[in-house]
Amino acid sequence: MATKTLEELLQKYEKYKAMNLKLNMSRGKPCQEQLNLSMGMMETLNSWTVLSCEDGFDCRNYGVLGGIEECKRLLGDIIEVPAKNIIIYGNSSLHIMYECISRAMTHGVMGSTPWSKLPKVKWLCPVPGYDRHFAITEYFGIEMINVPMTSEGPDMDMIEDLVSKDDTIKGIWCVPKYSNPDGTTYSNMTVKRFANLKPKAKDFRIYWDNAYSVHHLYDDKQDFLLEILDECRKAGNPDIVYKFTSTSKISFPGSGIAALATSDNNIEEIKKQMNISTIGYDKVNQLRHVRFFRDLNGIQEQMKRHASILRPKFELVEKILDKELSEQSEASWTKPHGGYFISLEVPGVAKEVVKRCKDCGVELTPAGSAYPYHNDPNNSNIRIAPSFPSILDLETATKILCLSVKIEYALKNKK
Amino acid sequence: MATKTLEELLQKYEKYKAMNLKLNMSRGKPCQEQLNLSMGMMETLNSWTVLSCEDGFDCRNYGVLGGIEECKRLLGDIIEVPAKNIIIYGNSSLHIMYECISRAMTHGVMGSTPWSKLPKVKWLCPVPGYDRHFAITEYFGIEMINVPMTSEGPDMDMIEDLVSKDDTIKGIWCVPKYSNPDGTTYSNMTVKRFANLKPKAKDFRIYWDNAYSVHHLYDDKQDFLLEILDECRKAGNPDIVYKFTSTSKISFPGSGIAALATSDNNIEEIKKQMNISTIGYDKVNQLRHVRFFRDLNGIQEQMKRHASILRPKFELVEKILDKELSEQSEASWTKPHGGYFISLEVPGVAKEVVKRCKDCGVELTPAGSAYPYHNDPNNSNIRIAPSFPSILDLETATKILCLSVKIEYALKNKK
Repeated sequence: MATKTLEELLQKYEKYKAMNLKLNMSRGKPCQEQLNLSMGMMETLNSWTVLSCEDGFDCRNYGVLGGIEECKRLLGDIIEVPAKNIIIYGNSSLHIMYECISRAMTHGVMGSTPWSKLPKVKWLCPVPGYDRHFAITEYFGIEMINVPMTSEGPDMDMIEDLVSKDDTIKGIWCVPKYSNPDGTTYSNMTVKRFANLKPKAKDFRIYWDNAYSVHHLYDDKQDFLLEILDECRKAGNPDIVYKFTSTSKISFPGSGIAALATSDNNIEEIKKQMNISTIGYDKVNQLRHVRFFRDLNGIQEQMKRHASILRPKFELVEKILDKELSEQSEASWTKPHGGYFISLEVPGVAKEVVKRCKDCGVELTPAGSAYPYHNDPNNSNIRIAPSFPSILDLETATKILCLSVKIEYALKNKK
Repeated sequence: MATKTLEELLQKYEKYKAMNLKLNMSRGKPCQEQLNLSMGMMETLNSWTVLSCEDGFDCRNYGVLGGIEECKRLLGDIIEVPAKNIIIYGNSSLHIMYECISRAMTHGVMGSTPWSKLPKVKWLCPVPGYDRHFAITEYFGIEMINVPMTSEGPDMDMIEDLVSKDDTIKGIWCVPKYSNPDGTTYSNMTVKRFANLKPKAKDFRIYWDNAYSVHHLYDDKQDFLLEILDECRKAGNPDIVYKFTSTSKISFPGSGIAALATSDNNIEEIKKQMNISTIGYDKVNQLRHVRFFRDLNGIQEQMKRHASILRPKFELVEKILDKELSEQSEASWTKPHGGYFISLEVPGVAKEVVKRCKDCGVELTPAGSAYPYHNDPNNSNIRIAPSFPSILDLETATKILCLSVKIEYALKNKK
């Protein structure tokens, strides 16, 4: 019976293969309809527009190191931080994170020994997590330690224990809201425990990548995240966190605005470096964003339009997973309320499934990507990015994914 | 007689002081009229524009790490380098230089020991030079060695001698055309000698900041600079140079496009790092520049318009210096054919002159800025930046500067 089913599955698979498909669910890229939502931004500034910011400074010229006030306010509103605790950079929050670690390597953190002078630096990595985070720490030769995710966020018992004992642990990667890839939002208790961490290393920092702060899929089902800077301040731990955000998935990926939010002391330290590394970032683009979105309300309206494009895609994938894999007891998947990913857990067969999909023209994020060193100990996690393909392509791709899961488990169970 | 003259000079100075002026000749900032030249760029892209580059890629989305082809070609044309040897970054060439040194500190250069692991790293600094260059090397704790400038460029005998003997010397700052601050363009022989350097350190790199490649003041008096990448290739030394450029003083300072040009091997190494540090730079702004300027001809037309605004300012300053200081035998100054600065040499009194100007409401670049550690051994160099003030302000400011020079020499000679 099982063999017959496998044969049927393989026949179906061959039919898909013969279609010579080329579908991509590998990266969290907005689709064309989403990009079109921001095209009005191209006309926000015209040749007769006065390109001065509210304090009168001509945004076309050199200067204004940390960003113009109204843009700091806008991004501050998005992540619930006062403008004075915001630094606006270029187009990439990932690059800010890279630069923070690079600076710590060469100059330490607030007077600590530069990490490049230390025999060993370690980092905590909630898993599954974001591959590009892990790539940065790996590039700098930092040893990464897996911390399992729970439904409340990362395992805080383990984190508290490790950081209190080991002063070579200098940081942790966090995507606290609609996390990449499993869509989890850290609970209030998790945020409070982060804010109250007592790390042995004085130069330990929480890298709080708030990439999906306003990226809800539903009006009526939204996750809530406690604001961490405020919690850290209340806990007498104001300098422990760097918080990152960007408009990459609000306006244009690659042509948006990225920012760092942190304590007064951290801002002061970082500005000393910025003053050396640049004369300033692109203020015209800062102005363009402020004039287009105006305020938090404008951002929220835009996010509703994004959600109306993304929601049917997420629901379609979830529907197909429910239908096709409900009897595959090994498999499980997330139904996030926001963010860019659905996380599919298929213990023991993730690599094989991704390869089988690829052979059939469906590209997924490489298996293991959500783990440091691409090493998923259970060979389980597959990250699904439903945003970029069309509804039609998404349907086909997800069906092929489900079919591949069923085939791989059938093959495995046959052995 | 001399005393009487001094009294007269001081009386004149007090009159200026009573005017409560606030004039600024401190930085090489374009003026408003120059910024207006690029306002058309604000309309190059509209809400109905197709924002795809020539290979069909949607510039609004993530991707295309090294920049879009047509933008690489445009910036390549400006600095006479093929597109394949160009990487487009964000808005700041200074930030690219910072990142090159930072990368060498943490990762070395093509497999060499990371500089942060070495007991000592040294750098050659042609003087007078650009303060922001020196600030970067100082920030990284690199020991700077002064190399005197000649009318042909830096003292090549000294450079050849030093780099051939000392493998802790890892680089040199160069502004090879219309140099900051003295407007010198390196001679063909100087460029050839750079290309043929045989440094003891295999990870030595020439930091060739070609900031003013097309920034001529005259149609009929233009300096010519040999293209260094080509000379290095011919000399069998292809990897020895990083060449930098930007459109900061072509379009908008702070909202332009910056680029690195270097050998295939260097490009390959640097792209490995870029692939970790970012998903890509602002391609919409790259497209905006290409669509606005179209090609090298468009750039050159724009530079003629810049020159027509800048030339009268340079000529005014030179005229006043000629008139007021021709009998002050200690003083000398440059008459550059391009770039952003006039260099005034007043041996023994630079600091005093800058202070006296400041007390009278005229801000100049701090004395010593053109030297590493702000240490001008002859207390001689004052950098004049004529671009930003209006013609009227410039006239007043330059007169106050000349008056201050005369007063300080009179005071000095009195002692």
